[in-house]
Amino acid sequence: MLESIKSLVEAKNVKELRTITEDMNEADIADAVEQLEPEGRVILFRALRKDMAAEVFAYLSPDTKEALVSQLTAPELGRIVDELFLDDAADLVEELPADVVKRILENASPETRRGINQLLQYQEDSAGSIMTTEYISLRPDMNVEQSFKHIREVGTDKETLYTCYVTDPKGILIGVVTVRTMLLSQYADKIGDIMTDTNLISVNTNDDREKVTELFQKYDFIALPVVDSEKHLVGIVTIDDAMEVLEEESTEDFHKMAAMLPMDEPYLAMSVGELARKRVIWLMVLMISATLSGSILTHYQSVFAALPALIASIPMLMDTGGNAGSQSSTLVIRGLAVGELKIRDFMKVFFKEIRVSLLVGGGLAVVNFFYKYAMSGDFLLSLTVGISLFATVIFAQTVGGMLPLLAKAVGFDPALMAAPIVTTIVDAGSLTMYFAVASKVMSMGA
Amino acid sequence: MLESIKSLVEAKNVKELRTITEDMNEADIADAVEQLEPEGRVILFRALRKDMAAEVFAYLSPDTKEALVSQLTAPELGRIVDELFLDDAADLVEELPADVVKRILENASPETRRGINQLLQYQEDSAGSIMTTEYISLRPDMNVEQSFKHIREVGTDKETLYTCYVTDPKGILIGVVTVRTMLLSQYADKIGDIMTDTNLISVNTNDDREKVTELFQKYDFIALPVVDSEKHLVGIVTIDDAMEVLEEESTEDFHKMAAMLPMDEPYLAMSVGELARKRVIWLMVLMISATLSGSILTHYQSVFAALPALIASIPMLMDTGGNAGSQSSTLVIRGLAVGELKIRDFMKVFFKEIRVSLLVGGGLAVVNFFYKYAMSGDFLLSLTVGISLFATVIFAQTVGGMLPLLAKAVGFDPALMAAPIVTTIVDAGSLTMYFAVASKVMSMGA
Repeated sequence: MLESIKSLVEAKNVKELRTITEDMNEADIADAVEQLEPEGRVILFRALRKDMAAEVFAYLSPDTKEALVSQLTAPELGRIVDELFLDDAADLVEELPADVVKRILENASPETRRGINQLLQYQEDSAGSIMTTEYISLRPDMNVEQSFKHIREVGTDKETLYTCYVTDPKGILIGVVTVRTMLLSQYADKIGDIMTDTNLISVNTNDDREKVTELFQKYDFIALPVVDSEKHLVGIVTIDDAMEVLEEESTEDFHKMAAMLPMDEPYLAMSVGELARKRVIWLMVLMISATLSGSILTHYQSVFAALPALIASIPMLMDTGGNAGSQSSTLVIRGLAVGELKIRDFMKVFFKEIRVSLLVGGGLAVVNFFYKYAMSGDFLLSLTVGISLFATVIFAQTVGGMLPLLAKAVGFDPALMAAPIVTTIVDAGSLTMYFAVASKVMSMGA
Repeated sequence: MLESIKSLVEAKNVKELRTITEDMNEADIADAVEQLEPEGRVILFRALRKDMAAEVFAYLSPDTKEALVSQLTAPELGRIVDELFLDDAADLVEELPADVVKRILENASPETRRGINQLLQYQEDSAGSIMTTEYISLRPDMNVEQSFKHIREVGTDKETLYTCYVTDPKGILIGVVTVRTMLLSQYADKIGDIMTDTNLISVNTNDDREKVTELFQKYDFIALPVVDSEKHLVGIVTIDDAMEVLEEESTEDFHKMAAMLPMDEPYLAMSVGELARKRVIWLMVLMISATLSGSILTHYQSVFAALPALIASIPMLMDTGGNAGSQSSTLVIRGLAVGELKIRDFMKVFFKEIRVSLLVGGGLAVVNFFYKYAMSGDFLLSLTVGISLFATVIFAQTVGGMLPLLAKAVGFDPALMAAPIVTTIVDAGSLTMYFAVASKVMSMGA
């Protein structure tokens, strides 16, 4: 398919390109556009049907969008922006450089411009910032047949028509009715009679967008209404946008948990300087903190001067402690993120982690003892390492499980209490325990 | 709301309970059921309208479902299972104990039983295992009005009615038509003329469920058809189920990346033994691997015997190396998971990580040098630590970035190449470099 598009683009066969693309999905056409040379992109893009062109445009990567915008004429640009769903147009305005945005907005219709500006006023990561204002409103005295007629007239540029909203004359949301309900009712049924008008689920424009994804996960909705502080309906969020947010929120957590500032651009699109900046800050903080563990080693210098063989187990203790702790913190962070765990589960998590770590630590310690004894033949040394490992795992998993909950309780982001910080804390603890145990056990031997 | 339900349940006021719940969302009723005592649950549950009861049941936690099943009569159970969407019923059968399942299936209609058994034959994590067989089929010679009539007749127990499927007499998928298209067409338009019949996007029953979520993210669908190897339509996956899968896949990656076997039950629902088993295996493997780093320390014993101050920086080097490496591996693993990165980007990632690590490593090394020098006043020691840190970060970020791509290239799960394994490898490398640098620099001073 891509090959035939490429040769048609080279032959500048616009007519045949139009015929081929008519049958293609917009996401696939966008893939093809991405893979063409800049001159070829414009040829393919101009061959598209007007309404398809806008949708294809919405699927393109920011870089390609920017390049394409510079190649298109003013009226072409205006048409695309007018055809885009308003939330996509607002996203476009946010991700392109200011001079490109200026060119775009100049060529859009006044109505589109107003819509975009309205959406841009909401704070990043708020429900308002991911909503669209293009929804279908119905009146309660319409019947199903009239509603279908209305949908047929105004539906083409609405993001979804499957959930329709009913407002009172002041614009306050009074009901929701799905096309499912309408299709399963009679044509003569009144919207006011079949709509849901109690326990309406909605979000406020200022609510965090995570609340939106939580509601989509709790209720099987296709769209969710967004209201302002006076309960006026101002927009809707559709499930495909919520799914995108869900993916972005997970990515953000992955980044934070690996001690990076969250990035909202794809890896390959980020500059080396930007990538370095996002990574270096936490590494710096953790590097300085890790000197604490170093000073513990210095403090106990006399112990390992007397028995240098102790040093060989330091990496194993530090790594196992870090790994064991990050298991617990990962489970709790993710549990909090998906709503399985709440702050009130603190004691439950605490007792569970204690018991799990007794089993895990015990298992590891026994295996390690025999392994170490087989390798070194030194009973007291193996005993020291085994006991220290046992204590380290218990300490690591308890700390790892509690820290994210504590962070959440005092209003910090639990995702920050992940492997890197847990490891730093656990290292200090496990080294201290190691030397304490060593002093005790070795003195028994002496 | 919960309070009034509680008091109505206590008063056994079934009539009022029915009235209140009629207006509530099923997910909220399920929340209320969860919070009642066992006897109260049955009272509330029996007060529900029959079709609502099944939906409420689908929202309950596995434990509550199991408890409730034991309290309900055989005919009540049969009705619930018959009313459930088939994919929910199949999930129920998979998550409940065998004796409970037997009781349920005995009371379901033969048709439901056949449907459930059909769904159960698909492999876990396949598209077949998450699909439902309850979709709407239309014939190409129907017009829109007839289609709406058909939907009205058969729609109530279909998971979605917004996307309808057209098959030929042999059951082969030949077209897809959305209610959106139908609503925007004329009542007399023929389905065969308005349906999409080229480039149909579908998945095979045996495809991995991750492919399903990828397609939902690429295309803005509400449902996706599932076909067998001969292209017969056998079911559909709806977007709300895909969203759940997306969440589960992310959770699985979080678990794997923290060196745990993936768990599909909530943290609080898992037994201590089960949790310990999921965690201990990788810890054991990593513990044994970490002894490699220990043997490096033993090997260079003479170096730090000559200069014990070297030991103080070992935790900092190990931790920073581990953190730096896991940043890179996290970025690449997540990039692969969301489809931003492909195996073919190997060289791009390689060169990017080299350059980023030069910046990050350089910055950290300079800060560390001055910090160490200010603390110790030992120029050569500070130089040794600074150079080693620089080399460690470059090594860590390059290895961290490459390993997941290599794993993917040879068919392993990239999520396994995360912090724990990267740390173990980087530790061995950074300690070796540290002692090599120390020998060189110190000999300069001598």
